Amino acid sequence: MRDVIFAFNENAGKAFLERLKGKKPLFACVIGVTETAKIPGISAAGKYPDLTDYTPPADVELLLLGKCKCIHGVPVTPEGIPTPALITKAALGLADLPVLVVSGGLKIKPQIPFFDLGGNPGGDIRTGNAVKNAEEVFEKAKLLGENLAKIAEYLVIGESVPGGTTTALGVMLAMGVNAEGKISSSMPNNPHELKIKTVEAGFRASGIKFGALANDPLKAVSCVGDPMMPAFAGLVAGAAESIPVLMAGGTQMGAILAIVKALKPKILGNVAIGTTRWVIADKTADLAGIVAQIADVPVLAANLDFSLSKFDGLKAYEAGVVKEGVGAGGACIAAILKSSGMISSVGLLAEVEKIYNQLVSSDVT
Amino acid sequence: MRDVIFAFNENAGKAFLERLKGKKPLFACVIGVTETAKIPGISAAGKYPDLTDYTPPADVELLLLGKCKCIHGVPVTPEGIPTPALITKAALGLADLPVLVVSGGLKIKPQIPFFDLGGNPGGDIRTGNAVKNAEEVFEKAKLLGENLAKIAEYLVIGESVPGGTTTALGVMLAMGVNAEGKISSSMPNNPHELKIKTVEAGFRASGIKFGALANDPLKAVSCVGDPMMPAFAGLVAGAAESIPVLMAGGTQMGAILAIVKALKPKILGNVAIGTTRWVIADKTADLAGIVAQIADVPVLAANLDFSLSKFDGLKAYEAGVVKEGVGAGGACIAAILKSSGMISSVGLLAEVEKIYNQLVSSDVT
Repeated sequence: MRDVIFAFNENAGKAFLERLKGKKPLFACVIGVTETAKIPGISAAGKYPDLTDYTPPADVELLLLGKCKCIHGVPVTPEGIPTPALITKAALGLADLPVLVVSGGLKIKPQIPFFDLGGNPGGDIRTGNAVKNAEEVFEKAKLLGENLAKIAEYLVIGESVPGGTTTALGVMLAMGVNAEGKISSSMPNNPHELKIKTVEAGFRASGIKFGALANDPLKAVSCVGDPMMPAFAGLVAGAAESIPVLMAGGTQMGAILAIVKALKPKILGNVAIGTTRWVIADKTADLAGIVAQIADVPVLAANLDFSLSKFDGLKAYEAGVVKEGVGAGGACIAAILKSSGMISSVGLLAEVEKIYNQLVSSDVT
Repeated sequence: MRDVIFAFNENAGKAFLERLKGKKPLFACVIGVTETAKIPGISAAGKYPDLTDYTPPADVELLLLGKCKCIHGVPVTPEGIPTPALITKAALGLADLPVLVVSGGLKIKPQIPFFDLGGNPGGDIRTGNAVKNAEEVFEKAKLLGENLAKIAEYLVIGESVPGGTTTALGVMLAMGVNAEGKISSSMPNNPHELKIKTVEAGFRASGIKFGALANDPLKAVSCVGDPMMPAFAGLVAGAAESIPVLMAGGTQMGAILAIVKALKPKILGNVAIGTTRWVIADKTADLAGIVAQIADVPVLAANLDFSLSKFDGLKAYEAGVVKEGVGAGGACIAAILKSSGMISSVGLLAEVEKIYNQLVSSDVT
């Protein structure tokens, strides 16, 4: 398993991987949007801020259909670097993994089947009113997680929510996790200052302080979170009672972990975080430093390396652009495991390049 | 397996059951509504015609939560006989089977997680414009079926759509299946004449004749069907390519079978119909006579017997009220199989009575 890095809590990580070997996973992708992503400079998950409403539905269309329907081409950063959904799609395709999509709250509906949990699009966290019905969405997601746990042997859960690291910072600070300066970004120049100012405005608007909502995670989500969070946390809470769950994402998973720990601490032994090497290598962030404050769960990373790619749009990942998203790292880990290592980082890059080439070509014609 | 009746194509039915033994099923319930159900005298799936919009969401709330949220109590016929969802719930609960809900088109959303396929509530078939986007819903459901087939070992698919036998009659006649006088009803006095008049009005409005749409099943659905149909047929088309599918329902399954046969005849070897003894015993209907016209698939029936029930509301099933719905028969067959016969018709009645008692009590308080 040289293609999986043990980034935190190595022994538990190895034991967790052993439990997953030979088992059949289900990949669930939780999507949502927040007005927070439209604050200039916050998110690179869309060519323009207003396009961030289309990124999550386009990402899951890519996973299920092999192409996007609600936008032309694929989601890109302002510099044209493509969505990590390409990596997720490559992993799911190579390993023939099933995918289910869960909406936490959207403006644009994807042209694929998706689970509706009654969620709404998220507000700008500077208003202090970020998510309308976090508790309802959490409860429905928990019920869904319980049912999925009866058919899947383990769950890999990814997410796509532009602006998600800023809302994650908000929820972690509200819950007393010192994540300041530790959260990652889809941009190479991590705008820590802008993010903390945004969160501080939300704190002022909702009258909360650092750690004030340590025991009320869904209130924290309601004030300064995003609609992906209650759906993701509910799925974990429902499924990890009976099967292992790989939470696939970067530093945002710190917020989910804090929510799950506050609401259902007993299931943490069934939980690990799966991400990419690019998040682990990010010198502007500290995923292990976040997780260590919350719970002793392992952090695994897919040892992806795009430095030898023939496409500049993929090489850019090595420069710290995008890094993670749409469960890319966790999907790669699941693909590697399911194939007993036959699917490697090298094979994954080749598949990503194939998909990239097809979609860039079809974008041109 | 004395609790399963082989009602049509016995040898194939026995072989089909053998294939399911020891396997883990997933129960999917497809729901939808149609204005057709509001024609006085057409449907007993609701206390009043206007309440039929609430019956499907209430049915699936019962399956997932053990109680209804969008209505008080449980769905009942005008005479107060309770929904067959009680039977489905008993079977799923005893065998601990997972449930996923799929919406084909609703007016009232259930308070549980459900798959959105972009469908709309159905129109009155007398207008000839019954279902808006049948093709879109079919394609999305197919994609969902393909993905579910990667996690479940077989699918049991049920439905809840008030007015569904009339729309089934419409689609079968449009496709050249002579179902006149052969479709069942949720009422003991089967209103065949009203149903055929309703379908004839739809034929006039859409300018079609018997058999005119034999090769265009989704057009038949668009003109005189209901929104459950493209979702149900799409799930079968997507899943039965790789796993067995038990289509759980009564004579409505004739319409689904005709649609599937027209669009994907190769998968019929992976398909069977599962229903209740009450449908088979219905002298006003002829499920086998319908199926024989379409395809050589087996028809199985759960050998349920409520004649000794201590509740009049359940005894009424023996008088031919309700008979089937919400996949009751198929869910019972799956529960019997999963338990290797430990779950019996007697045990199922006891569990139905337990649930009935709880929900009637909670209705009173």
